[in-house]
Amino acid sequence: MSELPTPDQLEVRLRRVGAERYHHLHPFHHLLHTGKLNKPQVQAWALNRYYYQSQIPRKDAAVLGQMDDAALRREWRERIIDHDGDAEGEGGILRWLKLATGLGLDADYVRSTKGILPGTRFAVDAYVNFCRSKPLLEAVASSLTEMFSPDIIGQRVAGMLQHYDFVSPEILAYFNKRPVQAKRDSDFALDYVKTHARTVADQQAVIAALEFKCGVLWSQLDALHFAYVEPGHVPPGAWKPEA
Amino acid sequence: MSELPTPDQLEVRLRRVGAERYHHLHPFHHLLHTGKLNKPQVQAWALNRYYYQSQIPRKDAAVLGQMDDAALRREWRERIIDHDGDAEGEGGILRWLKLATGLGLDADYVRSTKGILPGTRFAVDAYVNFCRSKPLLEAVASSLTEMFSPDIIGQRVAGMLQHYDFVSPEILAYFNKRPVQAKRDSDFALDYVKTHARTVADQQAVIAALEFKCGVLWSQLDALHFAYVEPGHVPPGAWKPEA
Repeated sequence: MSELPTPDQLEVRLRRVGAERYHHLHPFHHLLHTGKLNKPQVQAWALNRYYYQSQIPRKDAAVLGQMDDAALRREWRERIIDHDGDAEGEGGILRWLKLATGLGLDADYVRSTKGILPGTRFAVDAYVNFCRSKPLLEAVASSLTEMFSPDIIGQRVAGMLQHYDFVSPEILAYFNKRPVQAKRDSDFALDYVKTHARTVADQQAVIAALEFKCGVLWSQLDALHFAYVEPGHVPPGAWKPEA
Repeated sequence: MSELPTPDQLEVRLRRVGAERYHHLHPFHHLLHTGKLNKPQVQAWALNRYYYQSQIPRKDAAVLGQMDDAALRREWRERIIDHDGDAEGEGGILRWLKLATGLGLDADYVRSTKGILPGTRFAVDAYVNFCRSKPLLEAVASSLTEMFSPDIIGQRVAGMLQHYDFVSPEILAYFNKRPVQAKRDSDFALDYVKTHARTVADQQAVIAALEFKCGVLWSQLDALHFAYVEPGHVPPGAWKPEA
């Protein structure tokens, strides 16, 4: 039987998952922030990622709904508030919609999610279902990709502003708040899993949950890359750039 | 308000969905049956598709479990029997495993599904979840891609035998039984949806279910194509051909 790694050793192992599997390594991310995409390709990214953003509060409700403790729930509730805002016209989902419309997409079309790739839908839905069906510890662990997001956001925003004349700081305003929110949220979640993963099996499940989530993010970029970077690969029914 | 199309008009509409969205149109299918893939690429196809096969009885149990009528259930039960067989060493899943091992993959590795693409897993799980969460009519309609499978199977088997020296009729034995089973099953399912889709909304839901399912199949080939046809795109953790 293996000895239980310490919480800090677990953290090292989780950070290694990020170093090896987070989507900062994906070629589409590289193309995006180095200015190698054209406007329709950036639009496709914004359109598809809107679906991810729009489902986050449903995912977080599944996690919150598993929590037995009001203090925990209050903490987790912040995530839902961040995304949904306090009133119409606020919140992270709305800010992402503004990113998409700032790039020239129609708001109703984006909100309808009619044009997203099947691969986007299946990956995002897999994430929501994971959090609905897995134990709380694993559901919390699946959020830990946020440990790695401040870096990728910095790279993405700086690169996009430098390389694309159709991008402005206003369009990318979604990202202003994310690094602080992500740091707060992932500090909390990391502390939670370090405290609550009390067996080798727990730790393995935590690592597997983070690997799963890296797959959710990675496979969204796979779908985008295949459909919109190579010509001729847009699946039937998905958004097509105007010719 | 639109007039209700006749059952036969609904069938025409469903066949058009197939003509426009079924994966016989996917470039990966074309590469596969025209001999343009190498052995590792065919192995990747077999490895990933195993996961799809392996989940079919769980999907069919979700459908069967919604049926109120023993005669219906007996009909649908055939699908589960086809895939699981009557004893160890029988059934469609086992025949697909033999296809994979006949191509040189390790049986335990294939069965573990450890090396499949995230895109495969998310698409297949989306199908199972669709049949668990949607009304019976839509769950039945999502199986209607089988209307189109006898043609694609014929093309695939003939093409693979002609072009790949590592493929034999024994390896492809899985497909021997499928056209007859698929015809029997899709005749039944088509008759069911033509009889039970009694409103415009029902018919639209049936069409949307078939479109959804086409997306499930299509997006599996997208994931394969992106990961294994272009070099350098295998996601972290997925099966890599030996160098």
